[in-house]
Amino acid sequence: MKVEVMKNILGANDKIAEENRRFFAEKKICVMNLMGSPGSGKTTLLEKTLSKISEKIKVAVIEGDLFTAKDAERIERHNVPVVQINTSGGCHLDAPMIQKALSSLDTDNLNLIIVENVGNLVCPAEFDVGENFKAVVLSITEGDDKPLKYPLIFKESEIVVLNKVDLIPFTNFNLDAAKEDLTTIHPGVKISEISCTKETGLDDFCDFILKKVNEVM
Amino acid sequence: MKVEVMKNILGANDKIAEENRRFFAEKKICVMNLMGSPGSGKTTLLEKTLSKISEKIKVAVIEGDLFTAKDAERIERHNVPVVQINTSGGCHLDAPMIQKALSSLDTDNLNLIIVENVGNLVCPAEFDVGENFKAVVLSITEGDDKPLKYPLIFKESEIVVLNKVDLIPFTNFNLDAAKEDLTTIHPGVKISEISCTKETGLDDFCDFILKKVNEVM
Repeated sequence: MKVEVMKNILGANDKIAEENRRFFAEKKICVMNLMGSPGSGKTTLLEKTLSKISEKIKVAVIEGDLFTAKDAERIERHNVPVVQINTSGGCHLDAPMIQKALSSLDTDNLNLIIVENVGNLVCPAEFDVGENFKAVVLSITEGDDKPLKYPLIFKESEIVVLNKVDLIPFTNFNLDAAKEDLTTIHPGVKISEISCTKETGLDDFCDFILKKVNEVM
Repeated sequence: MKVEVMKNILGANDKIAEENRRFFAEKKICVMNLMGSPGSGKTTLLEKTLSKISEKIKVAVIEGDLFTAKDAERIERHNVPVVQINTSGGCHLDAPMIQKALSSLDTDNLNLIIVENVGNLVCPAEFDVGENFKAVVLSITEGDDKPLKYPLIFKESEIVVLNKVDLIPFTNFNLDAAKEDLTTIHPGVKISEISCTKETGLDDFCDFILKKVNEVM
Protein backbone atom coordinates (compact mmCIF):
# COMPACT_ATOMS: atom_id res chain seq x y z
CA MET A 1 0.00 0.00 0.00
CA LYS A 2 2.83 2.37 0.87
CA VAL A 3 4.29 1.81 -2.59
CA GLU A 4 0.98 2.67 -4.19
CA VAL A 5 0.78 5.95 -2.29
CA MET A 6 4.34 6.76 -3.30
CA LYS A 7 3.44 6.14 -6.95
CA ASN A 8 0.51 8.54 -6.80
CA ILE A 9 2.59 11.31 -5.28
CA LEU A 10 5.35 10.79 -7.82
CA GLY A 11 2.87 10.69 -10.70
CA ALA A 12 1.41 14.06 -9.70
CA ASN A 13 4.92 15.45 -9.28
CA ASP A 14 6.06 14.24 -12.69
CA LYS A 15 3.15 15.99 -14.39
CA ILE A 16 4.15 19.37 -12.93
CA ALA A 17 7.83 18.62 -13.57
CA GLU A 18 7.00 18.27 -17.28
CA GLU A 19 5.17 21.60 -17.19
CA ASN A 20 8.23 23.19 -15.58
CA ARG A 21 10.50 21.58 -18.18
CA ARG A 22 8.43 22.94 -21.08
CA PHE A 23 8.40 26.38 -19.45
CA PHE A 24 12.21 26.38 -19.04
CA ALA A 25 12.69 25.24 -22.67
CA GLU A 26 10.43 28.04 -23.95
CA LYS A 27 12.31 30.63 -21.94
CA LYS A 28 15.70 29.05 -22.84
CA ILE A 29 16.60 28.78 -19.18
CA CYS A 30 18.99 26.05 -18.04
CA VAL A 31 18.16 24.59 -14.61
CA MET A 32 20.59 22.75 -12.33
CA ASN A 33 19.23 20.76 -9.37
CA LEU A 34 22.02 20.81 -6.78
CA MET A 35 21.81 18.08 -4.15
CA GLY A 36 23.91 16.67 -1.31
CA SER A 37 23.99 15.85 2.41
CA PRO A 38 23.58 18.54 5.06
CA GLY A 39 26.96 20.23 5.38
CA SER A 40 28.44 18.81 2.17
CA GLY A 41 29.12 22.44 1.19
CA LYS A 42 26.40 23.17 -1.37
CA THR A 43 25.87 26.81 -0.38
CA THR A 44 29.56 27.65 -0.18
CA LEU A 45 30.11 26.01 -3.58
CA LEU A 46 27.23 28.09 -4.91
CA GLU A 47 28.72 31.31 -3.51
CA LYS A 48 32.09 30.60 -5.12
CA THR A 49 30.42 29.63 -8.40
CA LEU A 50 28.26 32.74 -8.50
CA SER A 51 31.25 35.02 -8.05
CA LYS A 52 32.78 33.39 -11.14
CA ILE A 53 29.77 33.13 -13.49
CA SER A 54 27.31 35.88 -12.50
CA GLU A 55 29.06 38.46 -14.70
CA LYS A 56 28.95 36.15 -17.73
CA ILE A 57 25.33 34.97 -17.58
CA LYS A 58 22.11 35.91 -15.79
CA VAL A 59 21.61 33.60 -12.82
CA ALA A 60 18.91 33.17 -10.20
CA VAL A 61 18.85 30.81 -7.23
CA ILE A 62 16.02 28.88 -5.60
CA GLU A 63 16.97 27.84 -2.06
CA GLY A 64 15.29 24.85 -0.42
CA ASP A 65 15.43 24.45 3.33
CA LEU A 66 13.27 22.88 6.01
CA PHE A 67 13.32 26.11 8.02
CA THR A 68 15.25 29.42 8.13
CA ALA A 69 16.44 31.67 5.30
CA LYS A 70 20.11 31.38 6.30
CA ASP A 71 21.22 30.10 2.89
CA ALA A 72 19.17 32.61 0.91
CA GLU A 73 20.71 35.44 2.95
CA ARG A 74 24.17 34.18 2.04
CA ILE A 75 23.27 34.05 -1.67
CA GLU A 76 21.61 37.49 -1.64
CA ARG A 77 24.94 39.12 -0.81
CA HIS A 78 26.14 38.09 -4.28
CA ASN A 79 23.50 40.32 -5.92
CA VAL A 80 21.60 37.57 -7.70
CA PRO A 81 17.81 37.11 -7.42
CA VAL A 82 17.03 34.42 -4.85
CA VAL A 83 13.80 32.76 -3.72
CA GLN A 84 13.67 30.85 -0.45
CA ILE A 85 11.41 27.80 -0.20
CA ASN A 86 10.80 26.52 3.31
CA THR A 87 9.46 22.97 3.29
CA SER A 88 8.41 23.11 6.99
CA GLY A 89 10.11 19.81 7.70
CA GLY A 90 9.71 18.28 4.23
CA CYS A 91 12.78 16.33 3.16
CA HIS A 92 13.01 17.37 -0.53
CA LEU A 93 11.85 19.93 -3.08
CA ASP A 94 9.16 18.86 -5.52
CA ALA A 95 8.02 20.21 -8.88
CA PRO A 96 4.99 22.18 -7.57
CA MET A 97 7.23 24.04 -5.09
CA ILE A 98 9.53 25.07 -7.95
CA GLN A 99 6.58 26.07 -10.13
CA LYS A 100 5.29 28.32 -7.36
CA ALA A 101 8.73 29.86 -6.76
CA LEU A 102 9.05 30.78 -10.46
CA SER A 103 6.35 33.45 -10.09
CA SER A 104 8.78 35.40 -7.89
CA LEU A 105 11.49 35.49 -10.57
CA ASP A 106 11.83 37.61 -13.71
CA THR A 107 12.09 34.58 -16.00
CA ASP A 108 12.31 36.70 -19.18
CA ASN A 109 15.84 37.69 -18.24
CA LEU A 110 17.53 34.51 -17.08
CA ASN A 111 20.03 32.00 -18.50
CA LEU A 112 20.41 29.75 -15.47
CA ILE A 113 18.43 28.82 -12.38
CA ILE A 114 20.28 26.94 -9.70
CA VAL A 115 18.01 25.00 -7.35
CA GLU A 116 19.74 24.19 -4.07
CA ASN A 117 17.78 21.25 -2.73
CA VAL A 118 17.21 20.29 0.92
CA GLY A 119 20.31 18.76 2.51
CA ASN A 120 19.60 15.06 2.07
CA LEU A 121 21.41 12.32 0.14
CA VAL A 122 18.26 10.22 -0.33
CA CYS A 123 14.88 11.79 -1.09
CA PRO A 124 15.71 14.73 -3.42
CA ALA A 125 17.02 12.29 -6.04
CA GLU A 126 13.55 10.75 -6.34
CA PHE A 127 11.76 13.96 -7.29
CA ASP A 128 12.08 15.44 -10.77
CA VAL A 129 11.56 19.20 -10.60
CA GLY A 130 11.89 19.71 -14.37
CA GLU A 131 15.59 20.51 -14.25
CA ASN A 132 18.02 20.11 -17.19
CA PHE A 133 20.50 18.25 -15.05
CA LYS A 134 21.18 17.15 -11.51
CA ALA A 135 24.45 17.67 -9.64
CA VAL A 136 25.49 16.15 -6.32
CA VAL A 137 28.06 17.36 -3.81
CA LEU A 138 29.87 14.76 -1.70
CA SER A 139 32.17 16.04 1.00
CA ILE A 140 35.40 14.14 1.60
CA THR A 141 34.53 14.07 5.31
CA GLU A 142 31.41 11.97 4.58
CA GLY A 143 33.57 8.98 3.67
CA ASP A 144 34.40 7.11 0.47
CA ASP A 145 31.73 4.45 1.07
CA LYS A 146 28.84 6.81 0.31
CA PRO A 147 28.46 6.26 -3.48
CA LEU A 148 27.75 2.53 -2.97
CA LYS A 149 25.53 3.19 0.02
CA TYR A 150 23.44 5.90 -1.67
CA PRO A 151 23.65 4.91 -5.35
CA LEU A 152 20.50 6.55 -6.74
CA ILE A 153 21.61 10.15 -6.26
CA PHE A 154 24.97 9.42 -7.92
CA LYS A 155 23.26 7.56 -10.76
CA GLU A 156 20.88 10.48 -11.37
CA SER A 157 23.54 13.22 -11.31
CA GLU A 158 25.48 14.25 -14.43
CA ILE A 159 28.24 15.72 -12.29
CA VAL A 160 29.61 14.73 -8.89
CA VAL A 161 31.52 17.36 -6.93
CA LEU A 162 34.01 15.80 -4.52
CA ASN A 163 34.20 18.72 -2.12
CA LYS A 164 36.58 19.69 0.70
CA VAL A 165 39.46 17.81 -0.93
CA ASP A 166 41.81 19.97 1.19
CA LEU A 167 40.74 17.80 4.15
CA ILE A 168 41.85 14.51 2.55
CA PRO A 169 45.13 14.47 4.55
CA PHE A 170 43.17 14.54 7.82
CA THR A 171 40.78 11.71 6.89
CA ASN A 172 40.99 8.11 5.63
CA PHE A 173 39.16 8.99 2.39
CA ASN A 174 40.38 6.87 -0.53
CA LEU A 175 40.01 9.08 -3.61
CA ASP A 176 40.75 6.32 -6.13
CA ALA A 177 38.24 3.94 -4.56
CA ALA A 178 35.55 6.62 -4.50
CA LYS A 179 36.10 7.50 -8.15
CA GLU A 180 36.05 3.83 -9.14
CA ASP A 181 32.75 3.28 -7.31
CA LEU A 182 31.25 6.38 -8.91
CA THR A 183 32.21 5.20 -12.36
CA THR A 184 30.78 1.73 -11.66
CA ILE A 185 27.45 3.21 -10.53
CA HIS A 186 27.33 5.80 -13.28
CA PRO A 187 29.65 5.13 -16.23
CA GLY A 188 30.93 8.35 -17.78
CA VAL A 189 29.83 10.57 -14.90
CA LYS A 190 31.76 13.85 -14.67
CA ILE A 191 33.74 14.09 -11.41
CA SER A 192 34.99 17.46 -10.20
CA GLU A 193 37.47 17.67 -7.30
CA ILE A 194 37.02 20.93 -5.45
CA SER A 195 38.18 22.79 -2.37
CA CYS A 196 36.07 25.88 -1.79
CA THR A 197 38.30 27.13 1.03
CA LYS A 198 41.48 26.76 -1.04
CA GLU A 199 39.56 27.77 -4.21
CA THR A 200 40.82 24.85 -6.31
CA GLY A 201 38.89 23.03 -9.02
CA LEU A 202 36.16 25.67 -9.30
CA ASP A 203 36.87 26.60 -12.93
CA ASP A 204 36.25 23.00 -13.98
CA PHE A 205 32.82 23.07 -12.32
CA CYS A 206 31.94 26.50 -13.76
CA ASP A 207 32.97 25.44 -17.27
CA PHE A 208 30.67 22.42 -17.01
CA ILE A 209 27.74 24.67 -16.03
CA LEU A 210 28.47 27.24 -18.74
CA LYS A 211 28.58 24.47 -21.35
CA LYS A 212 25.16 23.27 -20.17
CA VAL A 213 23.79 26.82 -20.36
CA ASN A 214 25.11 27.19 -23.89
CA GLU A 215 23.35 24.01 -25.00
CA VAL A 216 20.01 25.56 -24.01
CA MET A 217 20.54 29.13 -25.29
CA MET B 1 -4.04 15.32 0.35
CA LYS B 2 -0.34 14.64 0.77
CA VAL B 3 -0.65 15.54 4.43
CA GLU B 4 -3.51 13.08 4.83
CA VAL B 5 -1.47 10.27 3.30
CA MET B 6 1.44 11.10 5.60
CA LYS B 7 -0.89 10.92 8.59
CA ASN B 8 -2.13 7.46 7.62
CA ILE B 9 1.38 6.11 7.21
CA LEU B 10 2.48 7.62 10.52
CA GLY B 11 -0.64 6.29 12.25
CA ALA B 12 0.09 2.74 11.11
CA ASN B 13 3.73 3.16 12.10
CA ASP B 14 2.87 4.44 15.58
CA LYS B 15 0.69 1.40 16.27
CA ILE B 16 3.58 -1.00 15.57
CA ALA B 17 5.99 1.30 17.43
CA GLU B 18 3.81 0.90 20.53
CA GLU B 19 3.87 -2.90 20.11
CA ASN B 20 7.66 -2.76 19.86
CA ARG B 21 7.84 -0.52 22.95
CA ARG B 22 5.71 -2.95 25.01
CA PHE B 23 7.86 -5.85 23.81
CA PHE B 24 11.09 -4.08 24.81
CA ALA B 25 9.65 -3.17 28.25
CA GLU B 26 8.61 -6.79 28.87
CA LYS B 27 12.06 -8.05 27.92
CA LYS B 28 13.76 -5.18 29.84
CA ILE B 29 15.72 -4.20 26.76
CA CYS B 30 16.81 -0.59 26.31
CA VAL B 31 16.72 0.63 22.69
CA MET B 32 18.69 3.56 21.28
CA ASN B 33 17.73 4.96 17.87
CA LEU B 34 20.97 6.45 16.48
CA MET B 35 20.52 9.00 13.71
CA GLY B 36 22.60 11.48 11.71
CA SER B 37 23.64 12.56 8.21
CA PRO B 38 25.52 10.25 5.85
CA GLY B 39 29.13 10.34 6.94
CA SER B 40 28.52 11.95 10.32
CA GLY B 41 30.36 8.98 11.81
CA LYS B 42 27.58 6.85 13.27
CA THR B 43 29.16 3.48 12.49
CA THR B 44 32.61 4.44 13.72
CA LEU B 45 31.08 5.83 16.92
CA LEU B 46 29.20 2.56 17.29
CA GLU B 47 32.38 0.51 16.85
CA LYS B 48 34.22 2.55 19.48
CA THR B 49 31.23 2.35 21.82
CA LEU B 50 30.85 -1.42 21.42
CA SER B 51 34.49 -2.01 22.30
CA LYS B 52 33.87 -0.17 25.59
CA ILE B 53 30.45 -1.52 26.65
CA SER B 54 30.07 -4.97 25.10
CA GLU B 55 31.85 -6.65 28.00
CA LYS B 56 29.63 -4.95 30.56
CA ILE B 57 26.21 -5.54 29.01
CA LYS B 58 24.66 -7.68 26.27
CA VAL B 59 24.28 -5.60 23.11
CA ALA B 60 22.85 -6.21 19.65
CA VAL B 61 22.79 -3.88 16.67
CA ILE B 62 20.20 -3.32 13.94
CA GLU B 63 21.79 -1.64 10.91
CA GLY B 64 19.67 0.37 8.52
CA ASP B 65 20.97 1.14 5.04
CA LEU B 66 19.45 1.77 1.62
CA PHE B 67 21.70 -0.87 0.07
CA THR B 68 24.83 -2.90 0.99
CA ALA B 69 25.79 -4.63 4.23
CA LYS B 70 28.98 -2.59 4.64
CA ASP B 71 28.09 -1.25 8.08
CA ALA B 72 26.84 -4.59 9.39
CA GLU B 73 30.12 -6.20 8.32
CA ARG B 74 32.03 -3.58 10.31
CA ILE B 75 29.89 -4.23 13.40
CA GLU B 76 30.09 -8.01 13.09
CA ARG B 77 33.85 -7.87 13.69
CA HIS B 78 33.10 -6.72 17.25
CA ASN B 79 31.38 -10.04 18.00
CA VAL B 80 27.94 -8.68 18.72
CA PRO B 81 24.76 -9.95 17.05
CA VAL B 82 23.82 -7.71 14.14
CA VAL B 83 20.85 -7.61 11.76
CA GLN B 84 21.06 -5.68 8.49
CA ILE B 85 17.93 -3.99 7.16
CA ASN B 86 18.13 -2.82 3.56
CA THR B 87 15.41 -0.29 2.77
CA SER B 88 16.00 -0.55 -1.03
CA GLY B 89 16.12 3.21 -1.37
CA GLY B 90 13.81 4.07 1.55
CA CYS B 91 15.03 7.08 3.52
CA HIS B 92 14.37 5.93 7.09
CA LEU B 93 13.66 2.91 9.28
CA ASP B 94 10.11 2.41 10.47
CA ALA B 95 8.57 0.39 13.28
CA PRO B 96 7.48 -2.61 11.15
CA MET B 97 11.05 -3.03 9.85
CA ILE B 98 12.34 -3.13 13.43
CA GLN B 99 9.60 -5.57 14.48
CA LYS B 100 10.60 -7.89 11.64
CA ALA B 101 14.31 -7.63 12.48
CA LEU B 102 13.64 -8.64 16.10
CA SER B 103 12.80 -12.19 15.03
CA SER B 104 16.47 -12.61 14.05
CA LEU B 105 17.73 -11.69 17.54
CA ASP B 106 17.83 -13.69 20.77
CA THR B 107 15.83 -11.11 22.71
CA ASP B 108 15.84 -13.15 25.93
CA ASN B 109 19.49 -12.32 26.42
CA LEU B 110 19.85 -8.65 25.67
CA ASN B 111 20.20 -5.43 27.66
CA LEU B 112 20.60 -3.00 24.78
CA ILE B 113 19.68 -2.80 21.10
CA ILE B 114 21.30 -0.04 19.12
CA VAL B 115 19.42 0.85 15.94
CA GLU B 116 21.64 2.65 13.45
CA ASN B 117 19.22 4.49 11.22
CA VAL B 118 19.63 5.39 7.53
CA GLY B 119 22.02 8.33 7.05
CA ASN B 120 19.60 11.24 6.86
CA LEU B 121 19.12 14.31 9.06
CA VAL B 122 15.43 14.69 8.16
CA CYS B 123 13.13 11.68 7.76
CA PRO B 124 14.31 9.25 10.49
CA ALA B 125 13.31 11.76 13.19
CA GLU B 126 9.68 11.52 12.07
CA PHE B 127 9.33 7.76 12.59
CA ASP B 128 9.01 6.30 16.08
CA VAL B 129 10.36 2.74 16.08
CA GLY B 130 9.48 2.07 19.73
CA GLU B 131 12.90 3.10 21.04
CA ASN B 132 13.62 4.28 24.60
CA PHE B 133 15.57 7.27 23.36
CA LYS B 134 16.90 8.86 20.21
CA ALA B 135 20.48 10.06 19.72
CA VAL B 136 21.83 12.19 16.88
CA VAL B 137 25.39 12.51 15.60
CA LEU B 138 26.44 15.83 14.05
CA SER B 139 29.87 16.01 12.50
CA ILE B 140 31.86 19.20 12.95
CA THR B 141 32.44 19.21 9.19
CA GLU B 142 28.69 19.59 8.53
CA GLY B 143 28.76 23.14 9.89
CA ASP B 144 27.43 24.89 13.00
CA ASP B 145 24.24 26.07 11.23
CA LYS B 146 22.71 22.59 11.09
CA PRO B 147 20.78 22.56 14.41
CA LEU B 148 18.67 25.58 13.36
CA LYS B 149 18.25 24.25 9.82
CA TYR B 150 17.19 20.73 10.88
CA PRO B 151 15.57 21.39 14.28
CA LEU B 152 13.25 18.37 14.56
CA ILE B 153 15.97 15.74 14.87
CA PHE B 154 17.75 17.76 17.56
CA LYS B 155 14.50 18.37 19.41
CA GLU B 156 13.68 14.65 19.36
CA SER B 157 17.10 13.44 20.52
CA GLU B 158 18.01 13.14 24.21
CA ILE B 159 21.70 13.29 23.37
CA VAL B 160 23.60 15.09 20.61
CA VAL B 161 27.06 13.82 19.73
CA LEU B 162 29.24 16.55 18.26
CA ASN B 163 31.60 14.27 16.37
CA LYS B 164 35.01 14.76 14.72
CA VAL B 165 35.90 17.61 17.10
CA ASP B 166 39.56 16.95 16.18
CA LEU B 167 38.77 18.63 12.84
CA ILE B 168 37.61 21.93 14.43
CA PRO B 169 40.98 23.64 13.76
CA PHE B 170 40.60 22.97 10.01
CA THR B 171 37.03 24.32 9.75
CA ASN B 172 35.11 27.49 10.68
CA PHE B 173 32.83 25.58 13.10
CA ASN B 174 31.81 27.75 16.07
CA LEU B 175 31.38 25.33 18.98
CA ASP B 176 29.82 27.87 21.36
CA ALA B 177 27.26 28.99 18.75
CA ALA B 178 26.30 25.38 17.96
CA LYS B 179 25.85 24.53 21.64
CA GLU B 180 23.77 27.65 22.22
CA ASP B 181 21.49 26.81 19.26
CA LEU B 182 21.11 23.22 20.46
CA THR B 183 20.10 24.39 23.93
CA THR B 184 17.61 26.87 22.44
CA ILE B 185 15.99 24.16 20.31
CA HIS B 186 16.07 21.55 23.05
CA PRO B 187 16.59 22.93 26.57
CA GLY B 188 18.52 20.51 28.77
CA VAL B 189 19.70 18.30 25.90
CA LYS B 190 22.84 16.33 26.68
CA ILE B 191 25.74 17.30 24.40
CA SER B 192 28.73 15.01 24.04
CA GLU B 193 31.90 16.24 22.28
CA ILE B 194 33.69 13.31 20.69
CA SER B 195 36.60 12.47 18.43
CA CYS B 196 36.51 8.81 17.41
CA THR B 197 39.91 8.99 15.71
CA LYS B 198 41.57 10.60 18.75
CA GLU B 199 39.32 8.53 21.10
CA THR B 200 38.26 11.48 23.23
CA GLY B 201 34.86 11.97 24.89
CA LEU B 202 33.76 8.37 24.39
CA ASP B 203 33.43 7.55 28.11
CA ASP B 204 30.90 10.36 28.52
CA PHE B 205 28.74 8.87 25.73
CA CYS B 206 29.09 5.31 27.06
CA ASP B 207 28.16 6.41 30.61
CA PHE B 208 25.01 8.04 29.23
CA ILE B 209 24.01 4.81 27.48
CA LEU B 210 24.78 2.62 30.49
CA LYS B 211 22.67 4.89 32.72
CA LYS B 212 19.79 4.49 30.26
CA VAL B 213 20.23 0.71 30.25
CA ASN B 214 20.18 0.67 34.06
CA GLU B 215 16.89 2.57 34.17
CA VAL B 216 15.25 -0.23 32.18
CA MET B 217 16.83 -3.26 33.88
